[in-house]
Amino acid sequence: MIKKLEKHISEQLSFLQGKKLLIACSGGLDSVVLSYLLRQLKFEIGLAHCNFSLRGKESDQDEEFVVELADSYSVAVYTETFDTKKFAKEHKLSTQMAARQLRYHWFEEIRQDFTYDYIVTGHHADDDLETFLINLSRGTGLKGLTGIQEINELVVRPILPFTRAEILNFAKEKNLYWREDSSNKKADYLRNVLRLNVLPPFKEAAPGVIASLQKTQKHLKDSYSLIEDYLSLVYTLVVQEIPEGYTINIDKLKELPNTNALLYEITSPFGFTDFKAVSELLESQSGKQVFSETHRLLKDRNVLILTEISEKKEEKEFYIKKNQIKITKPFQMELKSIDKIGNITSSTIYVDNDKIDYPLVVRKWQEGDVFFPFGMKGKKKLSKFFKDEKLSLVRKEKIWVLTSNNQIVWVVGYRPDDRFKVDDKTKNILKVTRTT
Amino acid sequence: MIKKLEKHISEQLSFLQGKKLLIACSGGLDSVVLSYLLRQLKFEIGLAHCNFSLRGKESDQDEEFVVELADSYSVAVYTETFDTKKFAKEHKLSTQMAARQLRYHWFEEIRQDFTYDYIVTGHHADDDLETFLINLSRGTGLKGLTGIQEINELVVRPILPFTRAEILNFAKEKNLYWREDSSNKKADYLRNVLRLNVLPPFKEAAPGVIASLQKTQKHLKDSYSLIEDYLSLVYTLVVQEIPEGYTINIDKLKELPNTNALLYEITSPFGFTDFKAVSELLESQSGKQVFSETHRLLKDRNVLILTEISEKKEEKEFYIKKNQIKITKPFQMELKSIDKIGNITSSTIYVDNDKIDYPLVVRKWQEGDVFFPFGMKGKKKLSKFFKDEKLSLVRKEKIWVLTSNNQIVWVVGYRPDDRFKVDDKTKNILKVTRTT
Repeated sequence: MIKKLEKHISEQLSFLQGKKLLIACSGGLDSVVLSYLLRQLKFEIGLAHCNFSLRGKESDQDEEFVVELADSYSVAVYTETFDTKKFAKEHKLSTQMAARQLRYHWFEEIRQDFTYDYIVTGHHADDDLETFLINLSRGTGLKGLTGIQEINELVVRPILPFTRAEILNFAKEKNLYWREDSSNKKADYLRNVLRLNVLPPFKEAAPGVIASLQKTQKHLKDSYSLIEDYLSLVYTLVVQEIPEGYTINIDKLKELPNTNALLYEITSPFGFTDFKAVSELLESQSGKQVFSETHRLLKDRNVLILTEISEKKEEKEFYIKKNQIKITKPFQMELKSIDKIGNITSSTIYVDNDKIDYPLVVRKWQEGDVFFPFGMKGKKKLSKFFKDEKLSLVRKEKIWVLTSNNQIVWVVGYRPDDRFKVDDKTKNILKVTRTT
Repeated sequence: MIKKLEKHISEQLSFLQGKKLLIACSGGLDSVVLSYLLRQLKFEIGLAHCNFSLRGKESDQDEEFVVELADSYSVAVYTETFDTKKFAKEHKLSTQMAARQLRYHWFEEIRQDFTYDYIVTGHHADDDLETFLINLSRGTGLKGLTGIQEINELVVRPILPFTRAEILNFAKEKNLYWREDSSNKKADYLRNVLRLNVLPPFKEAAPGVIASLQKTQKHLKDSYSLIEDYLSLVYTLVVQEIPEGYTINIDKLKELPNTNALLYEITSPFGFTDFKAVSELLESQSGKQVFSETHRLLKDRNVLILTEISEKKEEKEFYIKKNQIKITKPFQMELKSIDKIGNITSSTIYVDNDKIDYPLVVRKWQEGDVFFPFGMKGKKKLSKFFKDEKLSLVRKEKIWVLTSNNQIVWVVGYRPDDRFKVDDKTKNILKVTRTT
């Protein structure tokens, strides 16, 4: 398995080579094997363990186990205890979703604070099959069947192509120790039922199912990207931006096959769910309109006009004073003076604190906004930038900018501005992180 | 369940109303309930039962049971005995595939001979979930996950939206009798393993899975038709017909996103599987070529030329003499003088035997071919007809025509010609059926 993983990394995940990896380590079979393998492959690693306090003494023993494992490997270890039930209750989440949110948020913190390049997890092919069936059982679309992402921004899953059986055999062969999570043996979550009762007879009767799933998901991913391409082509043909929102050209839409399905694809991301009412607009009189929770679709001769239902004006700008360390609206963002810059990511940037003027303002982007994309010479219209990034209408509409004196400092989540970047002369670095 | 089915038929399958239905009746729960329901809804029905001789005495008892059921309903019954194992061996098919071929071929014969409008089967939602998982376990693509078709030409599955549990409850409530197929209890076929061991715990843990599957498959079907639309758009942009085959415009293809994926979609139906070699043609020198079993792809400056690897010329025309009752090459086709016409389908047409000249010739269609589409005034180029029918390149290439004096009598599988149709003055009707 070591050779196979080495080959897989060099062929498919070569960007990992020479990088510092933070391993999400529960102490269970999968993460223990992952830790062992990455150490054998001479990666610089650290182990991060979350104690969710869900199984009393057993949880604490898991933590001890991971600490000892890290010691035996002489690598760094990070642990944190969470009151998962309380967090779940406060945020109205299931225990599993709460644990997931806490986990990835904390991993990202550790990654940044200790300058790891990537977070790696021990997800494997059987997890993928389980996820596929769970999504199916809840009702999903093409995207929901394409599987667990092997690379999702800075989270990488190097043993995703391997099966649980392979991993187990390897662990036994190498006499590895790991912790069994007693809750995995209780058939109370759907995932556990699948693992314990559903998949064993399925895999026995159809031994190739895991390989087949991988092949199938490869096809589904290709199909999904073809649809994305098609829709972005359709957008350029029928949708036009206007100051108040967008217009959809009815005549051009009708020239395309499956007009109603396309109209649905265009409008459903804005919350329109009454497919019939939306379709009827195509044939109705001017002035007729349909509402979603957030948007309005108005028939006006040969176009449908799509506009946001207006929010209160005063909510549209959010101010950040000097030395303010966080905002909670319109999203959570933290500001911190630091000494040394780390990696710029979609959620974190570093700016020269002396180049900016307070108060900073967070607002939605506007037609006409211009910025100097980080790492490029010269300026660019935001509308052009979004077009090049192939952003959908909905994603565009959700984009906020951080501004100083009405100059863009950061297209939040996308690209910092070159004018405010940290350079040789910078004395005060401000780290800005969007945390929700 | 009666009311629910009545509603479903009136909303989704209204074309069935007043029609004569041939029920594929094994004697098992599903087809017995289907027969009961359709009779209650006052359809004119007949029962067709295949005895596959696979379970000895039990098979014969099933047949008796269906005959008695039909008698008790005072409706027509048709039975036929097949030597499935022999047929399977001769045609190198699995027993299940052999039974399937024999069944549908025979149902279609009965349907035509006794002028039923549609064949109806008792497939239900649980069958759909099983099929989904079977396809998944073998590796499939988007199309393979979109489910059992409710309407497939003249075969209709009216109780596809109903679950096995609903059907079973209904049968018990109405005190219906049915035959249990003992082979369904043996976990030897994958389908039986799924039904007996895999799906019960899955459905128990995720009670909504069947409804979710239906919702999911609806989305997948929509996605699939978007891809079809996109590809047909891509074809019009980059593919051009030439006498020897097709050209693919490389420059135009490169203007589209995911060029390689698109090239794969265009070429894979012609048997090209070496994705890498095909992609490399885009950048290679003129003259470089790649072969599939049936086709050649040749780089020529800014186009790829796609041509069929030439067959021997003499194999390209097949003659039918007067009173000949069948041909076996290039496909099986039967010719029969009959008294009364039935429904024209994709595999059967009726022509006025006095309007045609022998020998009839079966050949591939050619650029320049023209015909008079049945039911339309005037003539049409075949190339235009295929374009309107949105046929893919591959399907077009496989199309045969039946000709009389080099006039097209039938675009086989698609449309008969108006000039040779049966009318008031016809004395001799010839029924022509493609059987493979």
